[in-house]
Amino acid sequence: MFSKNHDDCIASIGETKLIERIRGWLGEVSPPTPGGMGDDCAVLEPIREGLQLLTTDSVTFGQHFDASVRPEDAGAKLIKRNLSDIAAMGGEPEAALLTLICGPDLRLDWLESFVRGIRQCCADYGVFIVGGDVSQLAESHFVATLTLTGTCQNRPILRSTARIGDSIYVTGRLGGSILGKHYRFNPRIHEGKWLASRLEVSAMMDLTDGLGKDLAALLPEASSALIELSELPCSKEAETCASMDRRPTVAHAFCDGEDYELLFTVKAETDESAFLQGWHSRFPHLELTRIGSIIDARSASPYLDAATGKPLSWDHGFEHFTSR
Amino acid sequence: MFSKNHDDCIASIGETKLIERIRGWLGEVSPPTPGGMGDDCAVLEPIREGLQLLTTDSVTFGQHFDASVRPEDAGAKLIKRNLSDIAAMGGEPEAALLTLICGPDLRLDWLESFVRGIRQCCADYGVFIVGGDVSQLAESHFVATLTLTGTCQNRPILRSTARIGDSIYVTGRLGGSILGKHYRFNPRIHEGKWLASRLEVSAMMDLTDGLGKDLAALLPEASSALIELSELPCSKEAETCASMDRRPTVAHAFCDGEDYELLFTVKAETDESAFLQGWHSRFPHLELTRIGSIIDARSASPYLDAATGKPLSWDHGFEHFTSR
Repeated sequence: MFSKNHDDCIASIGETKLIERIRGWLGEVSPPTPGGMGDDCAVLEPIREGLQLLTTDSVTFGQHFDASVRPEDAGAKLIKRNLSDIAAMGGEPEAALLTLICGPDLRLDWLESFVRGIRQCCADYGVFIVGGDVSQLAESHFVATLTLTGTCQNRPILRSTARIGDSIYVTGRLGGSILGKHYRFNPRIHEGKWLASRLEVSAMMDLTDGLGKDLAALLPEASSALIELSELPCSKEAETCASMDRRPTVAHAFCDGEDYELLFTVKAETDESAFLQGWHSRFPHLELTRIGSIIDARSASPYLDAATGKPLSWDHGFEHFTSR
Repeated sequence: MFSKNHDDCIASIGETKLIERIRGWLGEVSPPTPGGMGDDCAVLEPIREGLQLLTTDSVTFGQHFDASVRPEDAGAKLIKRNLSDIAAMGGEPEAALLTLICGPDLRLDWLESFVRGIRQCCADYGVFIVGGDVSQLAESHFVATLTLTGTCQNRPILRSTARIGDSIYVTGRLGGSILGKHYRFNPRIHEGKWLASRLEVSAMMDLTDGLGKDLAALLPEASSALIELSELPCSKEAETCASMDRRPTVAHAFCDGEDYELLFTVKAETDESAFLQGWHSRFPHLELTRIGSIIDARSASPYLDAATGKPLSWDHGFEHFTSR
């Protein structure tokens, strides 16, 4: 991804030409100015209906991907991380700003592939890159940041609106994303929109740092989550990880980061079999699992094992800046 | 700014607590969720009138500031760089997303001061930090990126709408910003709004990479800028730089980056003395200088010396990734 041969590197063409190239690589997902790149700001029509959503997420070489990930996949991951945040509010993506902060020794062909991955993913999800910034970082470093706007036609689904008695659901299967899902996932845009349209759904977020860390954000004050460990939808990759490190498969499903699935709560009074039926007729190929409920006991752990009533020790997930 | 003592560093508290701290440091410029930090996206009311502006800019340690710059000033610079882009469209700033990508050895007290600089600047200009992201970079590295939204009640002033015959103006004095103005500047928000309200103004941008690089972006196809070098408003700092490196003072005014002044054009048929009078009664303390005009000759250089008719060789400014 980096090269000692100056002619292969972005340093060989300088900033102005690099921006021209990037625009070319982005093709049809880069609209003309003033609604796109090329002026001091992008100029957008205000949204007509609903609320505006705004989110940002980055991918850093060495943190969010390594040299084993194809550049196209790393580029797509940048877009999909942000799409997952829009999905978690039940929104629809719109315009984005792309910031590339690169060591001067970054290979041009690597960056081209990275940007082509961005283009393909933007085309797939109807996102336009309307602006951004390019600047320099120390040699052999690379950070890309995206800011994504969206709209929300329904009410936005917040994290803070779950209540005691609500059931807890998760889409898909969890754990072991390090084996590939961390960049191969599909952001749950359609699913998030559908869930936001269902009044039974009380709160929602996407799973980025692992259930063990993220679920706490959905719990109201003085409540705990009663978890049906036997119901936890463990991925095959969680099993593989478990066979490698001899931790339980459920521990991987509970604590591994980067699932990019939707975690949400459903109101206590809901007819859950009708709700599940509605889901399965709309999304026949994506599992939806009830993994527990919110109760009003607050114990030492935010999570209790429904089978034993005892606290679960896995009350954490991925944290930047700590090696825990 | 970085420390080998773990207890002084952001690694000592982890990501979740760090975000809580940042929110505390931001104080009143960080509104509560859903209009602020704390959910997957920030949820904003759509703007009622006018157009929406969107821009992003970063500050990277070692590129946009060094250890000699106080952290408060580096934080304020991040906001002001983005404000300058909003000013260049004649807009008004609104909400922002803050991304901090930090080595784990970044000092907590340094980051607190950096964020306090952001807070003060946001308070001064009516900007709210409604969301963002924190993640990890290699040791002893630091990048902060801001995305700023704004609104434009008047028409937005673009770069691409200057015509042959237009006069070229610049606010303030140019050159030598390396001696301190690169972080001590005032973004020209009020001036930009006033200029956007004047129909005489045909195109505008802010000066970030130096007149020699930036002005080319205002020139229509097959045109050149005839520059009155003797009129160029050179700063005292440009003189100081010239006395140090023995290049002409005007070369510094023409080529040094990070002036953060407004560069704009005024239509050929304008009564320029009335226009200047209007300016001086509204902004009595900020110089405004006519530095040349756009002509339909296209020579080897985009710039011609009005005194001699010869091409100016200073057709460049600051470029990332090149050492020119």
